[in-house]
Amino acid sequence: MEHDHLYKIRHSLAHLLAMAALDKYPDAKLTIGPAIDNGFYYDIDFGANKVGEDDLKDLQKKMKKLIGQSLPFAPVEMSEAEAREYFKDNEYKMELIDGITERGETLTFYKTGDEFIDLCAGGHVENTSEIAADAFRLERVAGAYWRGDENNTMLTRIYGVAFENKTYLDEFDTMMREAEKRNHRKLGKELGLFSFSELVGGGLPLWSPQGTILRDQIDRFVQELRSKYGYQKVTIPHLAKKELYETSGHWNKYSEDLFKVSAKDTGLHGDDHDMYVLKPMNCPHHTQIYDSQPRSYRDLPQRYSDTTMVYRAEQSGELSGLTRVLSITQDDAHVFCRKNQLEQELENIWDIVHTFYGRFGFDKMKVRLSFRDPENPEKYIGDPSTWEWAEDTIRTIAERHDMEIIDGPGEAAFYGPKLDFMASDSIGRQHQVATIQLDANLPERFDLYCINEDGEQERILMIHAAIAGSLERFGAVLIEHTAGAFPFRFAPTQVSVIPVNTEAHGARATEVADALRVAGLRVEYDAENKDGMGKQVRHAKKHKHPYWIIIGDQDIENGVVTVESRDSGENQQLTLEQAIELFTTENQ
Amino acid sequence: MEHDHLYKIRHSLAHLLAMAALDKYPDAKLTIGPAIDNGFYYDIDFGANKVGEDDLKDLQKKMKKLIGQSLPFAPVEMSEAEAREYFKDNEYKMELIDGITERGETLTFYKTGDEFIDLCAGGHVENTSEIAADAFRLERVAGAYWRGDENNTMLTRIYGVAFENKTYLDEFDTMMREAEKRNHRKLGKELGLFSFSELVGGGLPLWSPQGTILRDQIDRFVQELRSKYGYQKVTIPHLAKKELYETSGHWNKYSEDLFKVSAKDTGLHGDDHDMYVLKPMNCPHHTQIYDSQPRSYRDLPQRYSDTTMVYRAEQSGELSGLTRVLSITQDDAHVFCRKNQLEQELENIWDIVHTFYGRFGFDKMKVRLSFRDPENPEKYIGDPSTWEWAEDTIRTIAERHDMEIIDGPGEAAFYGPKLDFMASDSIGRQHQVATIQLDANLPERFDLYCINEDGEQERILMIHAAIAGSLERFGAVLIEHTAGAFPFRFAPTQVSVIPVNTEAHGARATEVADALRVAGLRVEYDAENKDGMGKQVRHAKKHKHPYWIIIGDQDIENGVVTVESRDSGENQQLTLEQAIELFTTENQ
Repeated sequence: MEHDHLYKIRHSLAHLLAMAALDKYPDAKLTIGPAIDNGFYYDIDFGANKVGEDDLKDLQKKMKKLIGQSLPFAPVEMSEAEAREYFKDNEYKMELIDGITERGETLTFYKTGDEFIDLCAGGHVENTSEIAADAFRLERVAGAYWRGDENNTMLTRIYGVAFENKTYLDEFDTMMREAEKRNHRKLGKELGLFSFSELVGGGLPLWSPQGTILRDQIDRFVQELRSKYGYQKVTIPHLAKKELYETSGHWNKYSEDLFKVSAKDTGLHGDDHDMYVLKPMNCPHHTQIYDSQPRSYRDLPQRYSDTTMVYRAEQSGELSGLTRVLSITQDDAHVFCRKNQLEQELENIWDIVHTFYGRFGFDKMKVRLSFRDPENPEKYIGDPSTWEWAEDTIRTIAERHDMEIIDGPGEAAFYGPKLDFMASDSIGRQHQVATIQLDANLPERFDLYCINEDGEQERILMIHAAIAGSLERFGAVLIEHTAGAFPFRFAPTQVSVIPVNTEAHGARATEVADALRVAGLRVEYDAENKDGMGKQVRHAKKHKHPYWIIIGDQDIENGVVTVESRDSGENQQLTLEQAIELFTTENQ
Repeated sequence: MEHDHLYKIRHSLAHLLAMAALDKYPDAKLTIGPAIDNGFYYDIDFGANKVGEDDLKDLQKKMKKLIGQSLPFAPVEMSEAEAREYFKDNEYKMELIDGITERGETLTFYKTGDEFIDLCAGGHVENTSEIAADAFRLERVAGAYWRGDENNTMLTRIYGVAFENKTYLDEFDTMMREAEKRNHRKLGKELGLFSFSELVGGGLPLWSPQGTILRDQIDRFVQELRSKYGYQKVTIPHLAKKELYETSGHWNKYSEDLFKVSAKDTGLHGDDHDMYVLKPMNCPHHTQIYDSQPRSYRDLPQRYSDTTMVYRAEQSGELSGLTRVLSITQDDAHVFCRKNQLEQELENIWDIVHTFYGRFGFDKMKVRLSFRDPENPEKYIGDPSTWEWAEDTIRTIAERHDMEIIDGPGEAAFYGPKLDFMASDSIGRQHQVATIQLDANLPERFDLYCINEDGEQERILMIHAAIAGSLERFGAVLIEHTAGAFPFRFAPTQVSVIPVNTEAHGARATEVADALRVAGLRVEYDAENKDGMGKQVRHAKKHKHPYWIIIGDQDIENGVVTVESRDSGENQQLTLEQAIELFTTENQ
């Protein structure tokens, strides 16, 4: 495999870290040390030595010294026997050698300078002089089980960040600081959007009134875009008998990730007739709505949308803020259509995705086309010509639009090709967002068909399409993308009304607040003005209200209101009618 | 206890049924035979004899003959020993005698005519001549376990209906036929509102697009009424750790009715840290939102509303249509307030209930006041003076409104008094609907307080209030109340547009349909007019569209549309603007 230069720098630094570690702790045993996003790490067994963040400075110094020595990286030849002799005291490397030889692969080795040899697949700079000594940093230490298995020895993982030059490292640091400021857990708390309770449990967010407005507005926007294309809401319970998932195939494949439900305390086994599953997705239920009555070709497409919580069992250690939760609110939809309707339906969904992400300023979207592996056609169900036609259709649509296309051959599910959309946020991070999945499998398993023009049963196709994906995950992305300054339509509070002083300006303030509410806006106004003006303005700014209106003597005298904008930072004097018009326009 | 005359008739008929049964099957063993709504039943052990609906005619004939004999009902004296001798071959009556004597109660017996004596608490006519022989009917046969316990013998239960006279029986029959026509299961299918799937399971309704509109409109109406009083939506997951319900007390009291959830296949016991509960109600979660930040008295009341599914384990034999389901969508709300805010909050909820049920034409509402048992003040938590004050407050509000009050002393929960609203439907049936519950218990258990004016922690009160109750149950009541002819605002399809002929009138029909949709109405219009006019009108009538618009030559010529009304059965010619105004007004 060809690696880019940055990869080579990072991978080479992992070797230098290993050398530095061995220099300081000659008995340490190396295991593996790959390049990763933004840097590299090395997992090392330091034996009885405790190596922590205090040691990083010293190791880093040693690495800089190695860089300064302009050491070459070069492949070296070793037979298996020689290798086993060379690494005989390191059980980790021996295990790696076992694996490589068992798989019939070639053992390769790289030498750095005169002495240090590591078992390695390659991808290094030719000389450490290619590495900028001021563009890397050892970052932190963590524990990691050998091969990720908790039954194995706990190793010490040392992480580093690394870039081509100091400018890029500085940019990265700036971005990280910005990301920390935008952290959705922190902002979620500051803006009072959601909370967690120990009694309820991790991964189960509780959404406050403010957070619920944000969720509902996102969902309504998706619904609005969908209703244009004839999607209809349906409603399903969160439970189903195990049999539903046996039929869909999820039970056999993902049983461990399913939450099992029973009224009995006494264990679930042996009581199968009482066993329910908490839905991990909505498609099997939706097939049952499709199948609840005979469908003529004239009734198709049927487009069911449903924003509802699905539940997937995750290890509690994996739960994190809104990005890994147990209760996932999908803005899900399923289209049941004929083959000849596929292109139009995909085109519609594309338009919805485009409009939705555009609204939030995610402009640089990319799409990944997960298609068949051309080498292994037998891995896929269905007629190869149908596959070819479906993939051609998808590519045609993708090329019709101004979006970067990434090919993913071999990444299709066995039952159909998939499109994954990626959005770049305001500080340059990529997020996987909407997904469209074609599905020839569930219609087969649930025997879904329509009666066609010839009065025959015709197998139909299903399309799965979530736009926001999940309200939790998209919520987290949106909070970080906007730093909590949500677009007007989505802001929990849209305008706050603040009198300079209650006696003199309270009556007019009440009038203004009422008029804004009648216009359908979400207004914060404390008629008692308990906190005073200064504190209220600070509150509006801290909570990122898009606008706040100050009402003082001059405003009343001139028959205007002073509207201050969060985004422009500017004031304008407007009549109440003009203000309402401004807000109503932004509310679209 | 004093019984009314109708009760006495029904209870007496149960005795006559027993006599007729013994006459036909001398070895039959009687068990119990009470009066019930609309009639009576008797549970009888017929031993080896199979008694079915074919035998009812004969039994009924025998009963009529007994009535004709003008037999007197009279109490008879018997000692316990005599009774045990008399009933010695009937293990059921012996068991009843055991129970009565163990509880230290008096045994009482009634004699009908010269021979038949039954163990009975009394409440009969004095003579069978008081019973109209043409005003009763044996209705059906069912199986019933002795004392409702499935480990006991299966008895034969014979049901009868009975009224004071034939006119009332006829009225009852008419009402039952009407109820059958309105049966929500039948109409739900005909109108395509919901369905059940064997794979998903009983008691888990799947709501079609049409049914979902009905649900959403009901819910939106409740939300609209609530938002006037400052209720705010919150969002919670359907899961919580067992600990939440241990704290709330539900785990200890209702563990059997809770659905337990675990990711493991291997039983729930012994793995407590992994055990979740599917929420049977929302209040414990809502307390955690309240408790997610410090609350000042100035932040109160906090009013959280949440329309969401709760799950309660019912035996599958008990599941029925929408009235007994496993997935219950409550339009739930909880108010967290101070004592001095209670009256205003109750007044607000009362207004919401009144407006909500009035909108659907449930005019004759009653309210049941479930208060303390004055004899057992020790059964209730909290200060007696607070109870008195709360009950007085409730009664004052109830008396302030024009609603029949029914007293329910002793029916309060141990943690607070309760109000249950009852609505009478269009065919005279009573349904228990909205409930308001005061709660001093959960604030105690979850340690909920606000910081009051003096900077002290002040224990708060909670009010639970569901307006529709559950969308499933209210949906069933509404379907039967309206016979599926929903008020305009709630109708899944509000208007259908039907051209007399596509070529001549299709263009105008499209124009009309588009204009109605732009006005926010739910329109059915088939631009291809595949079915022809006649079939479409029949479809509109069968699906109870509130209006359908026919467009023909004359309409186009005169610049009008012909609007036909489901409810008035009349046509009117209106301009498109007038039609939109009519519909928009009805849509409020």
